[in-house]
Amino acid sequence: MKLKYAIGVDLGGTKVKLGIVTAEGRIVKKIAVPTHANEGVDKSISQIIKGIKSLLKGNEKAISGIGIGAPGVVSLKKGTVENPPNLPGWGKVHLGKIINKEFSLPTFVENDANAAAIGELIYGAGKNLDSFIMVTLGTGVGGGIIYNKKLFRGDFGGAGEIGHITIDKNGPICNCGSFGCLETYLGNNYMIQDVKKQLENNKNSKIFELLDNDLEKLSPRIIHEASLLKDEFSIKIIEELSQKLGCGLASIVNVFDISNVIIGGGVSGFGRPLFNSTKESIKSRVLIPLKPRVKVLQAKLKNNAGIKGASSLVFYA
Amino acid sequence: MKLKYAIGVDLGGTKVKLGIVTAEGRIVKKIAVPTHANEGVDKSISQIIKGIKSLLKGNEKAISGIGIGAPGVVSLKKGTVENPPNLPGWGKVHLGKIINKEFSLPTFVENDANAAAIGELIYGAGKNLDSFIMVTLGTGVGGGIIYNKKLFRGDFGGAGEIGHITIDKNGPICNCGSFGCLETYLGNNYMIQDVKKQLENNKNSKIFELLDNDLEKLSPRIIHEASLLKDEFSIKIIEELSQKLGCGLASIVNVFDISNVIIGGGVSGFGRPLFNSTKESIKSRVLIPLKPRVKVLQAKLKNNAGIKGASSLVFYA
Repeated sequence: MKLKYAIGVDLGGTKVKLGIVTAEGRIVKKIAVPTHANEGVDKSISQIIKGIKSLLKGNEKAISGIGIGAPGVVSLKKGTVENPPNLPGWGKVHLGKIINKEFSLPTFVENDANAAAIGELIYGAGKNLDSFIMVTLGTGVGGGIIYNKKLFRGDFGGAGEIGHITIDKNGPICNCGSFGCLETYLGNNYMIQDVKKQLENNKNSKIFELLDNDLEKLSPRIIHEASLLKDEFSIKIIEELSQKLGCGLASIVNVFDISNVIIGGGVSGFGRPLFNSTKESIKSRVLIPLKPRVKVLQAKLKNNAGIKGASSLVFYA
Repeated sequence: MKLKYAIGVDLGGTKVKLGIVTAEGRIVKKIAVPTHANEGVDKSISQIIKGIKSLLKGNEKAISGIGIGAPGVVSLKKGTVENPPNLPGWGKVHLGKIINKEFSLPTFVENDANAAAIGELIYGAGKNLDSFIMVTLGTGVGGGIIYNKKLFRGDFGGAGEIGHITIDKNGPICNCGSFGCLETYLGNNYMIQDVKKQLENNKNSKIFELLDNDLEKLSPRIIHEASLLKDEFSIKIIEELSQKLGCGLASIVNVFDISNVIIGGGVSGFGRPLFNSTKESIKSRVLIPLKPRVKVLQAKLKNNAGIKGASSLVFYA
């Protein structure tokens, strides 16, 4: 029997987003429940169960399984989630077993960045690729490596931490304790803070106009818009970020010999200029035999990437 | 029948080194012939054949196969060697087929850095490890990644180019065209040149004494010896190189989730101080869950690593 429908669960620090997804990646039903993370593990788990139950209410479709994308260190085999950031007090939780027992459906748990990469492989921009490097530019910079149509997991499922490639050994200190990680330049908060600071000396940037002078609303999308209005400051910002992203990605391309890159997440709101410049930056830095092969693609799972990525685990397994 | 003997061929720009090697990695017979690289492809190939013939003269051991470690891009499946640096005019050569036809023995061709990694896996420091990062510090900085007891090759067999991880986006220009690659700090020539320059302002270093003031003889071993005599300059040099090596390796550990590192090659003549400091440097930079797992080991195949690595291809295949 061909698999047709799966449940995708995107476990976040604030909300659990859930959906029923087709094998083609279309969401046919969708809900969200609060995680209530500060009320402890049991409460959050009961919220997940509640969410799945209300998703299944009145459902007549044959559900093939449940996929869960979770933050933190996830053991795919054991279905455990360990010390997820934003979910205090979780320690090690056998989430897969608990959900499987509750619903008697095959349940797959994966790190959320890895799930996003699998999502692009199954439904998205990586559908026709054997291997690619997926990088998600959000609050953090996450990633996942697909090699020969499989997720490259490393020894303990932690592979793909692209945000913690160092591009400047003496660069700014990172949340992780190291210095000059890609995340310290491309992570949304670091980036917005840096652009705000630079705007102090660029008072004629069109960004001020676009924001009605309210810098709290500064976002990649606004910087992109300003660049389309030929705002030199914004064009320079996108170019510099692309150079840095390209530098980190070139190291990964060289060491993995994988030359397809898929970029997703909020910062990709910078749009085409970011993609083009990042491609040029990677090409200028990788080893000669790799240069003609470098491809940079935009992720296809945009809204609801979390739900779709999680559901893809069922069709991938 | 248990495999017992293999021929290992280490194809270099100046010399072809060849040996008969046991399944335990012991060399029982060894020779070398000049490559005559400037006389063209056919001459060099005939030199390899000549070498193998003289190795086999009078041999009564059952040879299981021939392994060849070659520079450049190597296709394991096709046995081709492409554009090897130091072997001008090679283009694409079906070396595996040619040697196999000549001797009717299974023949395996692999990139020399990859062969070194497989050598450590089969005979050396990686024998009891599932996964490790092998880095060879020589004129260049080479590498190979072993994952689940197999070489990680990437899309076209080029994976493991650890020397071309960038650790400083604005660092010195590298032979490869990029900037701040690990090789621009750790490659033997770059490194010796830099130390010589620094010695101009460190005239009281014990290195001068050890070398009878002949800086042409400067080598990692000498710097190590000086450091053992508590020469502050040499201690600082080794510490700084370790910091840089650790920075590049930490990126690789993070992105592969592989935490065992094996270091080989000439620069490892720096000895224990290099290994200890590199380990500390990696630990200080990797993500928290990886810190307790970081291991740094010295390569076991030292002299004749090339021959042994090449021969290991036969036992690995």
